[in-house]
Amino acid sequence: MREVAIMGVGMTKFGPTGLNLKELFAEAAIEAIEASNLEPKAIQALFVGNVLGDLAEGQMNIAGFLADEIGLGPSVPATRVEGACATAAIGFREAFMWVASGFYDVVLAGGVEKVSPMGTPLATRAFAMATDSHYEEFCGLTFPAVFGLLTHLYGHKYRVPLPTLKEQMAMVAVKNHHNGTMNPLAQFQSEITIEKVLQSPMVCDPLQLYDCCPFSDGAAAVVVASAEIARKMVSKPVKVLGIGQGSAGGLSRQKDFTVMRSRVASAGQAYKMAGLTPGDIDVVELHDCFTIAEIVASECLGFVDYGKGGAAAAGGDTGIGGRIPINPSGGLKAKGHPIGATGCAQIHEIVKQLRGECGPRQVDGARIGMTDTLGGDAGVVVNIILGI
Amino acid sequence: MREVAIMGVGMTKFGPTGLNLKELFAEAAIEAIEASNLEPKAIQALFVGNVLGDLAEGQMNIAGFLADEIGLGPSVPATRVEGACATAAIGFREAFMWVASGFYDVVLAGGVEKVSPMGTPLATRAFAMATDSHYEEFCGLTFPAVFGLLTHLYGHKYRVPLPTLKEQMAMVAVKNHHNGTMNPLAQFQSEITIEKVLQSPMVCDPLQLYDCCPFSDGAAAVVVASAEIARKMVSKPVKVLGIGQGSAGGLSRQKDFTVMRSRVASAGQAYKMAGLTPGDIDVVELHDCFTIAEIVASECLGFVDYGKGGAAAAGGDTGIGGRIPINPSGGLKAKGHPIGATGCAQIHEIVKQLRGECGPRQVDGARIGMTDTLGGDAGVVVNIILGI
Repeated sequence: MREVAIMGVGMTKFGPTGLNLKELFAEAAIEAIEASNLEPKAIQALFVGNVLGDLAEGQMNIAGFLADEIGLGPSVPATRVEGACATAAIGFREAFMWVASGFYDVVLAGGVEKVSPMGTPLATRAFAMATDSHYEEFCGLTFPAVFGLLTHLYGHKYRVPLPTLKEQMAMVAVKNHHNGTMNPLAQFQSEITIEKVLQSPMVCDPLQLYDCCPFSDGAAAVVVASAEIARKMVSKPVKVLGIGQGSAGGLSRQKDFTVMRSRVASAGQAYKMAGLTPGDIDVVELHDCFTIAEIVASECLGFVDYGKGGAAAAGGDTGIGGRIPINPSGGLKAKGHPIGATGCAQIHEIVKQLRGECGPRQVDGARIGMTDTLGGDAGVVVNIILGI
Repeated sequence: MREVAIMGVGMTKFGPTGLNLKELFAEAAIEAIEASNLEPKAIQALFVGNVLGDLAEGQMNIAGFLADEIGLGPSVPATRVEGACATAAIGFREAFMWVASGFYDVVLAGGVEKVSPMGTPLATRAFAMATDSHYEEFCGLTFPAVFGLLTHLYGHKYRVPLPTLKEQMAMVAVKNHHNGTMNPLAQFQSEITIEKVLQSPMVCDPLQLYDCCPFSDGAAAVVVASAEIARKMVSKPVKVLGIGQGSAGGLSRQKDFTVMRSRVASAGQAYKMAGLTPGDIDVVELHDCFTIAEIVASECLGFVDYGKGGAAAAGGDTGIGGRIPINPSGGLKAKGHPIGATGCAQIHEIVKQLRGECGPRQVDGARIGMTDTLGGDAGVVVNIILGI
């Protein structure tokens, strides 16, 4: 296996847009290709993530159309992958494998989603299709419900009283919105307060509106190449140090949903491959689809002791100047969460952080970063460790 | 790159069923694993093809659930791919790459589809989402329309009068239904006649009912391993000699749809990798979603001269005892076409043919076989060459 590095990255602004899936994807993809000092014809394969193109635009089989849209020729294999909210991270992992193996030298991985035309009720229903259709979705278990249950379970397990936990969760939202104010591509770029979170409408007990990430449109793309080529073509290639992907069945197969088994497996693979431990990581983009999701992920990835994730967030440990900065981009919570693109958007942020290009939200001296992307109710988790 | 071989294969009977997606997939997957003399725990990664799980069963993010259903653990990456009717062939190619690269030794590739609950109008509408949503589907271009247009274009280009061409196409249907009578897993197992085809209801001019493959439920699965492991574990491993995948945008990007550019690219890659020519192939499973589709594929893959595909079929060249047997399984036309499973079902047939296990439909002495799987209106094509 040879060394693999990221060359250029690209990303659209997240949030409702008039652009369609092809236009969104092309904007991010062309930015990534140009940032790699390449022409589209240099791309040898494409992996693209998209979850809801069929329901949003009546578009399945999207990979060939996206490849054509950016000028890739008929010999370039273009493949759509889907694993709910982890979709683009899965695509990135495929691109990594194909380059690491030596089959291809330069591969484009990206993701795109557009849900704004669907509206909240249909989008909520559609997202719920990422749970088990026979045992979960069937009972009306939407994602706010999944993470609402998780919140109660977490509070019960670690004996954190709900008012305390909700305040800690609100601090996660406040932090991520604050980070979003410094990210020109974020969907939300305004500060919020704990009071605003706790006074926001109830979505699914105990989760309130500001505990939840938004529905988003957007795209992100990453050019993956052999480290040898990347060193020649760009000034700051970012190496892929470790990567992992885990799987799981439905909630009934989780012994303890506060410690998701697919994440334990995935993160374990990534740390092992990189030869690193959580203490080596300087900056993290992780899957904060809900505020409680950030707390459990920060624990499971090893950055914070179990049961202490809320307190760590409330104490400032996970802020940009803190011990382990989490979601400096604003995270899914404020940057936005176009589900088919999120995995590559997280990589986009880590690459920019490791290159020192993040301006006011820059994590000083970040040399090693990690992403964490969760699909469904932990049906899939992908973790990626990058270094410069 | 190391040698890769197929160990066990599995397939359900095709056609309407009361089983759900998980049950269907498990039936094929467990058969493939048992035929490989393995336990599920030996599977190191899963690629699964499924196209319409969201519309049929409200199930996205299906890979983790399918992995769990057959007993794979949380460390096994499970990935869904989708490229319309070529979906399972794309998944097989991924499995091949991962094993060839040495990342994994034993990978399961499979596909599953269930459309019977949708009914013909919704299924036709849903399938049309594999065309370009902005320029094709938008105008009402369903797949019978795409291939109806192709029929007219073909007749015009090669100056084959429509009544002659329709009779040749009917012969393709008669041949494939005849082959299907010898395949216990085929959806249709009864003979038809040219008269029956030509008197069947018009679907989309000039395509009549028996020019069209059916909507089908079903699943197929293939265990892919290093040739070294395969030789130890099964008596007749089938080697992957060549593989290719091509892409294209919409119909407007096809210079001449009778010679699909994604197929030219894909087949070229597969022949080149195998170091073989069309004359070396003993048996073929190709994408006869409509009778005209078999004719153009037989030409583009190099088995028949351009413009002579219809005459070759009518003359018996493509029958089981003919010069180049095409679709001995019955093809999509009679075996059935569960779109997410078809690519692996074609591999299933070629593996059985090369092992001499096909009973009355056996192609005598077949040593090298080829598959051809088409997604959308040629947005993706995958070709695989196998040998024993």
